[in-house]
Amino acid sequence: MSHNTFGHLFRVTTFGESHGPAIGAVVDGCPPRLSFRREDVQAALDRRRPGQSRFTTQRREPDEVEILSGVIEAEDGTLTTTGTPIALMIRNVDQRSKDYSNIARSFRPGHADFTYIAKYGVRDHRGGGRSSARETASRVAAGAIASLVIPGVEISAALVAMGEIEIDRARWDWEEVDRNPFFCPDPVAAKEMEGYLDGLRKSGSSVGATIEVVAEGVPPGLGAPIYGKLDAELASALMSINAVKGVEIGAGMAASRLTGEQNADEMRVGPDGEPIFLSNNAGGVLGGIATGQPIVARFAVKPTSSILTPKQSLNEAGEEVDVSTKGRHDPCVGIRAVPVGEAMMAIVLADQTLRNRGQNGG
Amino acid sequence: MSHNTFGHLFRVTTFGESHGPAIGAVVDGCPPRLSFRREDVQAALDRRRPGQSRFTTQRREPDEVEILSGVIEAEDGTLTTTGTPIALMIRNVDQRSKDYSNIARSFRPGHADFTYIAKYGVRDHRGGGRSSARETASRVAAGAIASLVIPGVEISAALVAMGEIEIDRARWDWEEVDRNPFFCPDPVAAKEMEGYLDGLRKSGSSVGATIEVVAEGVPPGLGAPIYGKLDAELASALMSINAVKGVEIGAGMAASRLTGEQNADEMRVGPDGEPIFLSNNAGGVLGGIATGQPIVARFAVKPTSSILTPKQSLNEAGEEVDVSTKGRHDPCVGIRAVPVGEAMMAIVLADQTLRNRGQNGG
Amino acid sequence: MSHNTFGHLFRVTTFGESHGPAIGAVVDGCPPRLSFRREDVQAALDRRRPGQSRFTTQRREPDEVEILSGVIEAEDGTLTTTGTPIALMIRNVDQRSKDYSNIARSFRPGHADFTYIAKYGVRDHRGGGRSSARETASRVAAGAIASLVIPGVEISAALVAMGEIEIDRARWDWEEVDRNPFFCPDPVAAKEMEGYLDGLRKSGSSVGATIEVVAEGVPPGLGAPIYGKLDAELASALMSINAVKGVEIGAGMAASRLTGEQNADEMRVGPDGEPIFLSNNAGGVLGGIATGQPIVARFAVKPTSSILTPKQSLNEAGEEVDVSTKGRHDPCVGIRAVPVGEAMMAIVLADQTLRNRGQNGG
Amino acid sequence: MSHNTFGHLFRVTTFGESHGPAIGAVVDGCPPRLSFRREDVQAALDRRRPGQSRFTTQRREPDEVEILSGVIEAEDGTLTTTGTPIALMIRNVDQRSKDYSNIARSFRPGHADFTYIAKYGVRDHRGGGRSSARETASRVAAGAIASLVIPGVEISAALVAMGEIEIDRARWDWEEVDRNPFFCPDPVAAKEMEGYLDGLRKSGSSVGATIEVVAEGVPPGLGAPIYGKLDAELASALMSINAVKGVEIGAGMAASRLTGEQNADEMRVGPDGEPIFLSNNAGGVLGGIATGQPIVARFAVKPTSSILTPKQSLNEAGEEVDVSTKGRHDPCVGIRAVPVGEAMMAIVLADQTLRNRGQNGG
Repeated sequence: MSHNTFGHLFRVTTFGESHGPAIGAVVDGCPPRLSFRREDVQAALDRRRPGQSRFTTQRREPDEVEILSGVIEAEDGTLTTTGTPIALMIRNVDQRSKDYSNIARSFRPGHADFTYIAKYGVRDHRGGGRSSARETASRVAAGAIASLVIPGVEISAALVAMGEIEIDRARWDWEEVDRNPFFCPDPVAAKEMEGYLDGLRKSGSSVGATIEVVAEGVPPGLGAPIYGKLDAELASALMSINAVKGVEIGAGMAASRLTGEQNADEMRVGPDGEPIFLSNNAGGVLGGIATGQPIVARFAVKPTSSILTPKQSLNEAGEEVDVSTKGRHDPCVGIRAVPVGEAMMAIVLADQTLRNRGQNGG
Repeated sequence: MSHNTFGHLFRVTTFGESHGPAIGAVVDGCPPRLSFRREDVQAALDRRRPGQSRFTTQRREPDEVEILSGVIEAEDGTLTTTGTPIALMIRNVDQRSKDYSNIARSFRPGHADFTYIAKYGVRDHRGGGRSSARETASRVAAGAIASLVIPGVEISAALVAMGEIEIDRARWDWEEVDRNPFFCPDPVAAKEMEGYLDGLRKSGSSVGATIEVVAEGVPPGLGAPIYGKLDAELASALMSINAVKGVEIGAGMAASRLTGEQNADEMRVGPDGEPIFLSNNAGGVLGGIATGQPIVARFAVKPTSSILTPKQSLNEAGEEVDVSTKGRHDPCVGIRAVPVGEAMMAIVLADQTLRNRGQNGG
Repeated sequence: MSHNTFGHLFRVTTFGESHGPAIGAVVDGCPPRLSFRREDVQAALDRRRPGQSRFTTQRREPDEVEILSGVIEAEDGTLTTTGTPIALMIRNVDQRSKDYSNIARSFRPGHADFTYIAKYGVRDHRGGGRSSARETASRVAAGAIASLVIPGVEISAALVAMGEIEIDRARWDWEEVDRNPFFCPDPVAAKEMEGYLDGLRKSGSSVGATIEVVAEGVPPGLGAPIYGKLDAELASALMSINAVKGVEIGAGMAASRLTGEQNADEMRVGPDGEPIFLSNNAGGVLGGIATGQPIVARFAVKPTSSILTPKQSLNEAGEEVDVSTKGRHDPCVGIRAVPVGEAMMAIVLADQTLRNRGQNGG
Repeated sequence: MSHNTFGHLFRVTTFGESHGPAIGAVVDGCPPRLSFRREDVQAALDRRRPGQSRFTTQRREPDEVEILSGVIEAEDGTLTTTGTPIALMIRNVDQRSKDYSNIARSFRPGHADFTYIAKYGVRDHRGGGRSSARETASRVAAGAIASLVIPGVEISAALVAMGEIEIDRARWDWEEVDRNPFFCPDPVAAKEMEGYLDGLRKSGSSVGATIEVVAEGVPPGLGAPIYGKLDAELASALMSINAVKGVEIGAGMAASRLTGEQNADEMRVGPDGEPIFLSNNAGGVLGGIATGQPIVARFAVKPTSSILTPKQSLNEAGEEVDVSTKGRHDPCVGIRAVPVGEAMMAIVLADQTLRNRGQNGG
């Protein structure tokens, strides 16, 4: 019910504001006797961490995670889950909140400033408070725990479009993703993005992006029908990421244009007698349940709302003002959404995995 | 938690299979002292009912709703809600299940046949059982109750694309929607669809479609942040409809291509001193909370999987077979998804409305 | 969240009023491939059914259950669950609602009449509407489904006290329970109750009772700690039964008087090497988790509020009135609570069983 | 669903082990614009804090709460809630865990040691880990936030029995509760308890207790019927406290012995025209909904299981051992349960209050 908790059996509750003392997550429902190291969670956080290239916000956050509960530590530092809630805390360090003073009482166009006031009558003005993308660090930490629950599943994400630049799928190379600052699987497009984003960054502008998340190794039968559909939960998980405006599974919005003959993913018996599909318009999900093919989801992230060009807006007093954002910001917030997309995929699959164990019969 | 329940405070639990004795919904959490008539629910069902034109399945279901609980009936037939669960039941009548006998043990490509077996190890072979679009009749009945909870909100949906045919938004006319069998707001496109779909129907083929749902009159502040975002819940609600593969809010997937300057919805003071927006790329939602502008969502429905052309598949024994579907089916299942989209929008907004009353403070 | 749904993975949603068209339950989350017959559910309902002796209300309800969904029926009538929601409906037949006309607008002392108006501003006056013990028939039907999920567990309940008459535990005989109209395990006490209750019945009075529910065969480790404790959920389940005012586990309220030495349930190695306990003050639950000993719970049911003696009360207009109830009622509503207690135990254990499968690790 | 979260709209998720780095709570759903000070939460914690008299464990924990999120701090230290999750953290300081080394691998009779291993296959041996009463500090901190949501309600609790010593209700004096180390409202009984408990403490024994919690000012109509009953949720909340074995509302288990005439709480019109009740056997709840009278609940706490007298038990290897506990412990853990009972009452009422706002209609 709560809007700060995601999941049902594997549950992630996050807390914290952009410029408060700390952010974090309580991961509840993680099964016992799973082993990991603090460094595993830290490594996930480091991938999302800001300030790693000139293309993300220059806010300097070490994002050091402290694990407050839910594990037993062996002498070599190995942590074993006990089945109790795993609390993860990240102190905020670089809270340069004076950056925001000039816009503290104005509604930045495209931000949640206006709607938070409309809903709550009060808001934390410092850096967007709870609506800041900083909240997604908590998701990434929780995603690292989620991945323990689905050991046979490999989740990867990549940025497949930025503004008008789209990747060429023929050049897709997963190894390329970690070689450029955009998580882009196409080296040619990545090069193009670099020049394009440099221009935007210097002019104080921003741009949108599309991210694709793929999960391989999801067993057929994972998921649930009707309102708990694997794709419906993915849609909710991905749409809940800051600035996301669209979510697609498999053929996505383009399914509208297909005929039944084009759309049908035909089946054959595979080399080991297992069912295989000859195409994947379904994106790995039929009737809300995994087919065994890769789960393929895409989501579109709108451009960062904080731009230098003054835009017409209102302030909290209801007066017309012009707003221009001078704080440190990402010219393309979609870049840092890539590991967040992976984390949400992991959380959804971990939760469905635990639920399937309970519900499918035995 | 349950995958047959949607919503939190306004909760809809549906039950029933395509060819079982009955389908229905239990609507829980509906506030007391709201008035309606059985005919209001029936009218909503009649809009979705199959067999009304040659473009939807010829299954003949009267879809007569019986209200089993939760209301007090006055002598003039007016029903008043009492705050207790409203159970709505629709008997299945035309269960011509022999139509399915030849495919009973084969997996129809694009259907959930394979995944239900993968998950449950058993399935109701008759007409898709629980995975049939027949379940959406329960949603429409529940949506009629949901609309009682949000009296100031007007929800409309329209089919905006079918295959390669897209409407011209300059010709958008809401009144047109009820004048053609496609719920299409553009009379010219509707005419084109008629010829196109006749061809597909005769050849036993099918095609996808895109539906747009708009809610006007949603007050600013309605919604919730983080994981309970209004748009995240809409994404889940719409993706949960049978055959949906993509969901967009406002600018949708195209937000990927915008710059910050293009995307910003500027604000001014309206004629009555109220905040107004000069554009609606946000689709009426910022940070998961309504801005007061129309909520605009779109979803893509894949083509009906049941087609006459034989397609390669497997049967439950794991043998390779060719499957061709001869039952009565919709050449474009997206048509009947239009009222279902409206119902899901109503259910999401009703639920968020009740939650807002509790959570926003007073 | 909903107050008409019980359970998390095994979920029971009930609907219906005492004098409306029907009552029923939607059982969601029942695993697939479990077999039963309609007669099994009917038999459970028949045990609770009113009008079977002169000691329960003379309302004549056949309580015939109709199964609307969630099963496949074999030719021999065997039903197999499919994993989809099982909707159970019981038509109300004997709705002699004029019995209630004289008290329709007055608050019967001890009934929920006053509080329903205070909460909802409206109520169904006929026979208590939703607050009637008739709702418990839905629980019993759902309990029959729940018992399929826990095949190794045997649940029994007995009435152990009625007014001042308490059973002698030395005479406890489970077989006796079905030989008297009180579900009393002590034949001597049962005889005494008969005379006592005849007197009360004739004078239009009523009396309270205590019921004990025992579950044998619950495996050690079933349950959950902190807020999902097996005993906390049992407490909620039993307290939710109409007219219940107290719930005890094991030593119960008397635990207050014990010393640590008296209370300690010592452990030894059993004949087959399994852990055994030498006593059961814990009632089979430690830290919210089953020990493997019998789960023992008791609950106290207050006397039926409907009595012939006029009592001071108010009516809906706020005027002082005297209220005397002439309708058909149970002189000891605790009697019919016995099968309801069994049903709630089954539902709690079924739900914890499914959750354990998901959460305990594998 | 989660067993570490309590509540629906006002939700408390706790985390932390007895001897880990920290314990704490995330309070989600607290309405915005409520004011408090850190000292208010600290004061509540100080009441429960161990080591304040010779009758509670000598573990020295400062229990200093840090508020990590969800509030805006004014210059004078006033905190204002923003509607976002309030994370409360308490560092563990005095983790003298060698005290437990000798019993690390044995099951202490009456503890959850055995059942945690049975459920999870692993446990934190230090001081009971998650099953320690230390978790209740998190509840008390959350309860302080809950009390902000129900400003008109006054909640008090008292210890009304310890072993064979029961208070005399004629001597009940709420002011006395804070004058003795037992939260006992009867000064004569308190004196008796002092001598009695000194004896038990010296001999390394322990004893049970009964606590009564009363909430005044709860408006009629607060609550929910069927499975969300106010008394059912109280039963769950109180039974979830460590070592509790029974819960009563109003007349409680004694309701079993009453006749309908004795039990009926008659109603009259009060001096200001409001409905009043002439007795309170209902304990302020009818049909799960508040009557407006004081909500009266009692719960029995079993004796501390950790005693000096060796008791027969098993160790994790399945061998028979004798267990005697030498760590610092409470001779009567019921004493510190008094503020915990108040906290759980506050949390239940806060949650029902928010739900009522949403569900009752407007």
